[in-house]
Amino acid sequence: MNNRVALPVTDDNNVLLGIVTIDDILWVASEEFSEDMQKMGGTSALQEPYLDVPVFKLYKKRIIWLIILFVGETMTIAAMASFQETLEQVLVLSTFIPMIISSGGNSGSQAATLIIQAMALGEVAVVDWWQIAKREVKSGLLMGVTLGIVGFFIVFGGHYAFDLFGEHFIRIGFAIGIAIIGVVLWGTIMGSMLPLLLKRLGADPATSSTPFIATLVDVTGLLIYFGTAFMLLKGVLL
Amino acid sequence: MNNRVALPVTDDNNVLLGIVTIDDILWVASEEFSEDMQKMGGTSALQEPYLDVPVFKLYKKRIIWLIILFVGETMTIAAMASFQETLEQVLVLSTFIPMIISSGGNSGSQAATLIIQAMALGEVAVVDWWQIAKREVKSGLLMGVTLGIVGFFIVFGGHYAFDLFGEHFIRIGFAIGIAIIGVVLWGTIMGSMLPLLLKRLGADPATSSTPFIATLVDVTGLLIYFGTAFMLLKGVLL
Repeated sequence: MNNRVALPVTDDNNVLLGIVTIDDILWVASEEFSEDMQKMGGTSALQEPYLDVPVFKLYKKRIIWLIILFVGETMTIAAMASFQETLEQVLVLSTFIPMIISSGGNSGSQAATLIIQAMALGEVAVVDWWQIAKREVKSGLLMGVTLGIVGFFIVFGGHYAFDLFGEHFIRIGFAIGIAIIGVVLWGTIMGSMLPLLLKRLGADPATSSTPFIATLVDVTGLLIYFGTAFMLLKGVLL
Repeated sequence: MNNRVALPVTDDNNVLLGIVTIDDILWVASEEFSEDMQKMGGTSALQEPYLDVPVFKLYKKRIIWLIILFVGETMTIAAMASFQETLEQVLVLSTFIPMIISSGGNSGSQAATLIIQAMALGEVAVVDWWQIAKREVKSGLLMGVTLGIVGFFIVFGGHYAFDLFGEHFIRIGFAIGIAIIGVVLWGTIMGSMLPLLLKRLGADPATSSTPFIATLVDVTGLLIYFGTAFMLLKGVLL
């Protein structure tokens, strides 16, 4: 195949039907690239230049995914509601919610992007899942510990600079740090394994788009966060 | 240029230095595609096949962006802390935080993906910014109103099914719905304009990656949410 610029297409009797030129392949590759990008950003493929798509059609293509993600996010309401009592007693825990769940979402979309793209380039396949899982657990732990330490010191800084977190700030700092390790590790595992799972099930791995991963990790991230905080603050602040 | 499969490269005196074949171009295109994907997912480019990169190097490539995003997210701590009193009085508002900020992040990354990709395909350029802005404001409003209505009914459902939101649930429903319109509209505007701004400043628009947009929209989304809730619940629950 190397260095060919056109390929013949024949029927079963080897009668020439036509040729596929490298132009055709480039055109298809560019279409596929667009579709992949749009799926990863959570839109159905547009199939027309952006400025030619009527606004209402643009809306229709985008709203479907947004509604799916939005309804998925209602699970976070349930997660939040089930920890309402904990929050009532230690309201300061609410302060960290956006930061904690976003670290899970960010590490998850990063991992998903790496794996989707490595699959697209043929560098990894579904059979490599265990090797990938081991690498991602290690990377996820390293990243989680790093961000956890940063998080711990942010609580320290917030305490000394703005007196934000009350007398138990060290304990709160540990709760935040440890929760971040858990959330980042979990986000990394989910982000790397989900594209492989989708591929295994015959779906397009690019469907496990960044927003989709972020939504999944939001819910589990909240559970990890409140679970950790509950265990570490029980008997002291709870 | 059409239908050529190799191009000659000459020096200033038209002496042939060599040829660039379509293979070379395909190779470069595939490298660029990888880099774009990795930037959009918030990783520095790997430049090696995934399984060949040592875990510690993988960690180093990924942690930089994660720390930047994490430190960016500390602004959400400030936003949350400044509304701590509001939250103390109407704790139920905390329940919707993950859902609200994720709708901003999702609509923002969707818009960013569309625009980055339309720019990559040459369908839009920086000069089209005003035309794009008008389209995105319209789409953002349509999407925001749709999700806002869904959000309003989710509060209704949560009230009647699980008695989650107390006697002022209608007012809370309106606050949530209106906040969602604002957050989605804002996310869409930010997501579509930021890649154009980066391009204008000479940076790579793909740098305005999904996680980066999500982080920005998290902070502003919280301010829009609490601001709206404060205005609508003042005198009743606050």
